[in-house]
Amino acid sequence: MPINPQADIEVTAFRWVPKPAQGLVKDLRVRWALEEAGLDYRVRLIGMERPPGYAGDQPFNQVPCFRDEHVRIFESGAILQYIGEKSEVLLPREPQAKYRAIQWSFAALSSIEPFVQFRALLNNFWADQDWAEPAKPTFDRLARLRLQQLSERLGGNSWLEADRFTIGDLMMVTVLRTADRSGQLGDFPNLAAYVKRGEARPAFQQALSDQLAAFREHEPQGEAA
Amino acid sequence: MPINPQADIEVTAFRWVPKPAQGLVKDLRVRWALEEAGLDYRVRLIGMERPPGYAGDQPFNQVPCFRDEHVRIFESGAILQYIGEKSEVLLPREPQAKYRAIQWSFAALSSIEPFVQFRALLNNFWADQDWAEPAKPTFDRLARLRLQQLSERLGGNSWLEADRFTIGDLMMVTVLRTADRSGQLGDFPNLAAYVKRGEARPAFQQALSDQLAAFREHEPQGEAA
Repeated sequence: MPINPQADIEVTAFRWVPKPAQGLVKDLRVRWALEEAGLDYRVRLIGMERPPGYAGDQPFNQVPCFRDEHVRIFESGAILQYIGEKSEVLLPREPQAKYRAIQWSFAALSSIEPFVQFRALLNNFWADQDWAEPAKPTFDRLARLRLQQLSERLGGNSWLEADRFTIGDLMMVTVLRTADRSGQLGDFPNLAAYVKRGEARPAFQQALSDQLAAFREHEPQGEAA
Repeated sequence: MPINPQADIEVTAFRWVPKPAQGLVKDLRVRWALEEAGLDYRVRLIGMERPPGYAGDQPFNQVPCFRDEHVRIFESGAILQYIGEKSEVLLPREPQAKYRAIQWSFAALSSIEPFVQFRALLNNFWADQDWAEPAKPTFDRLARLRLQQLSERLGGNSWLEADRFTIGDLMMVTVLRTADRSGQLGDFPNLAAYVKRGEARPAFQQALSDQLAAFREHEPQGEAA
């Protein structure tokens, strides 16, 4: 769906972020879900300097926030589920299938993301800290264990619940992209293929392209090189 | 509610865990929610040595798992929501209030727990690692920032959405208990009081007592002292 300034749904995103974060900022999850669901949305772009009162929208000063005529919420997990309730494409209605999708969304955020995220931080954001190198084996073991367990569960399936793509897959793929970008999926070819499968979806491509377009448009002077 | 071996709902928990983990194992969240909702349940106790095929129930080898006649799910966040859908006591039905509760549940697991959990690990499980002490300032800053932001949002309210206790509070209180036990709430008296308010609920007391009773009953020989 084209971004539509008149749309009922509003998603808050950053106007610009440094290169390493581009394509990973979490409004991507929400844009992707809206594309899958065929719902158009408008974007509210904010700067690193948050607008006054922004903590009222998002107490942790992050993006995305979401609003429509009924709700104002933050946390990508909650937003994806709300979109799923609007669109059966992303969230089945039968209780077992519905709660499996929700379960995988929580698993992505709670059982996978913290481990791969901290492991990735050791490689980049914390690389110059003198404790980073000696801490790596511990964080590596933690992240690898979870990725191994997930890899075994996924097996040769296309998606976490076999053939049906849900908000659980959408969330998991975005989490695994961070792992992939920091070289954590080398020993898990089925997870790497799963990420590629997610990224190949037209809805993902549109969402990514729209996030990156805003960054290009608001590139600070002197950063373009 | 008494634990009832004939109940339709089954919760999987550990037979025994070492003292520092007692009262913090995550089946507590599910027991607490079931007590609040007035739903009886049976308990399936498993050992540290997981039963054959357990990865089919829980791919990360953790507890809790949940089953009833309709669903089999893991991830405490998903389970709490499922219980909330059975009982309006824990999850309001009006969309804004419902999604605020769900949002806080995701916030507890995704925006707070990783930071306080890793900070706590530096104090206990990782205390003898030579990188633990130099890593503390970084992890401390991360955890304190999130706790500060949460403290500001909670303010003088009883619960995260003012007067109404929901699955969001239940999840947040269990997450903050880990922070409290590792001394992270000293500068946040409103968060410490919020934890105490949660722990004072009769449903919490019953759930905690039932988790601890199983551990007492299955205390390994020679561990009782």
